[in-house]
Amino acid sequence: MIAPTLAPTKHLTITTVKAGEVLQGADVVSIEEPLEIKLDYGPGNDRATKNLSVTMRTPGHDDDLAAGFLFTEGIVNNAGDIEDIFYADRYCAEQKQNSIVVKLVASCLPVLQNADRNFYTTSSCGVCGKGSIEAIRTVSKFGTLNGGDIKVEKNILYQLPAALMEHQHDFSQTGGIHASALFSLSGGLLSLREDVGRHNALDKLIGNALVTGLLPLNNHLLLLSGRASFELVQKAAMAGIRIIAAIGAPSSLAVELAAEFNITLVGFLKSNRFNIYTSPERIV
Amino acid sequence: MIAPTLAPTKHLTITTVKAGEVLQGADVVSIEEPLEIKLDYGPGNDRATKNLSVTMRTPGHDDDLAAGFLFTEGIVNNAGDIEDIFYADRYCAEQKQNSIVVKLVASCLPVLQNADRNFYTTSSCGVCGKGSIEAIRTVSKFGTLNGGDIKVEKNILYQLPAALMEHQHDFSQTGGIHASALFSLSGGLLSLREDVGRHNALDKLIGNALVTGLLPLNNHLLLLSGRASFELVQKAAMAGIRIIAAIGAPSSLAVELAAEFNITLVGFLKSNRFNIYTSPERIV
Repeated sequence: MIAPTLAPTKHLTITTVKAGEVLQGADVVSIEEPLEIKLDYGPGNDRATKNLSVTMRTPGHDDDLAAGFLFTEGIVNNAGDIEDIFYADRYCAEQKQNSIVVKLVASCLPVLQNADRNFYTTSSCGVCGKGSIEAIRTVSKFGTLNGGDIKVEKNILYQLPAALMEHQHDFSQTGGIHASALFSLSGGLLSLREDVGRHNALDKLIGNALVTGLLPLNNHLLLLSGRASFELVQKAAMAGIRIIAAIGAPSSLAVELAAEFNITLVGFLKSNRFNIYTSPERIV
Repeated sequence: MIAPTLAPTKHLTITTVKAGEVLQGADVVSIEEPLEIKLDYGPGNDRATKNLSVTMRTPGHDDDLAAGFLFTEGIVNNAGDIEDIFYADRYCAEQKQNSIVVKLVASCLPVLQNADRNFYTTSSCGVCGKGSIEAIRTVSKFGTLNGGDIKVEKNILYQLPAALMEHQHDFSQTGGIHASALFSLSGGLLSLREDVGRHNALDKLIGNALVTGLLPLNNHLLLLSGRASFELVQKAAMAGIRIIAAIGAPSSLAVELAAEFNITLVGFLKSNRFNIYTSPERIV
């Protein structure tokens, strides 16, 4: 929809020390810049604006990021809630496009209490992981979707790390950026998003699926370039994803959340091995 | 000060698929649980309580985490501001210690506007990385400290990844947890903290330095187990750290912040090579 003027990477001159030798040379790093996400909502004669979040992100697909953030945080439920997404007029002194506005249709009432990330606390349970999981259940539109009969072959999983590496354009330059990728169950790459923040990479991916009408993603496979945290599994659950494979390790709460939502969670995925933490019946 | 009852790791039974073979076996994952940080402050006859933050953390050194968070976010400036740190009575249903109170001395006025993370915006610059860096300059107590004459030998740097790996107790079990470690300039390990959140690992490390009277850390070396983001360099700058070495890549804004604060930033540190992004004169 909108093309950012900020590049995702930056060229630097650095010093490299290698086996005692000191060299000056070129290097490429991933850009990290703040993005402010603002909401413009309400009926025609009573519009309001709210600053939702500032996230440190890599420029690119900022509209997907904003749409995905609103959806995975439970603030909006449908692509039709969003009328337009555009950069705010309020540029910074360097004219960077670091403020983005999501304009909702007049009839959409955003669930703003979800914006405060009160996922973590419920009155019944104080602050604990179990309370966090229960809170997501009340917010998730696709949490109870059936995904029981989908299957993926282990040979498909083996191929995913290489497929990810091949298409991680920014990572190939910088060696330092996360990716989230969406695959079909037969291993076809459908979309891939990169960001210095792994939650941003996933929000970009899910936001793109939202605006292109792909949701729910209960017939797909999500690949994470790093570890699987609670936050990433939560976002995946919001999008109806039923199979998550991570190159890295899962946390305890990621495993518990996956179990609660009947999500197959694979970790330490390599070209010839992986671990299955939950719902192994989907891997054949 | 306080001993948490929650373990940092959890044992699970999982399915491992390896070269086609399917095995059931034991696995260990890092625990991720929310921690609510609350502030108790004000003069004796007018005490107030404020919920500052909920962070997803690995249990252990929760008091260091709370103290470090308050310091690196600029909410308190000195160890003497803190009278006590204790778990809140408000346990969750599972009796997990997931809520912690930092009680300030009556004379300390916490800078609560910093708690809202308004670092990212200044009126002059809108939302951009440069504005974020300038905002930190105004908050940082040790930002202008001299650290120009400290040096570290490249052979010391080469040894750090192995030293880190040797002492990452939780990582050795789970393969999925971040670490921050503090070394002397001669390569002696002074302290190490692990957490599923890399910002938490660093807050634990800096919080421990705060309460043991080690700050500022301008005669030390900070080692990060992963990538160097803006947030991590910001926290290091708050503690007066002048040399940061990361096993992974830095982001653009991490490099810019390090340059502004005259911090030596090393990335991609391995046993026989590394990159120097800023202030290379401290590496000899």
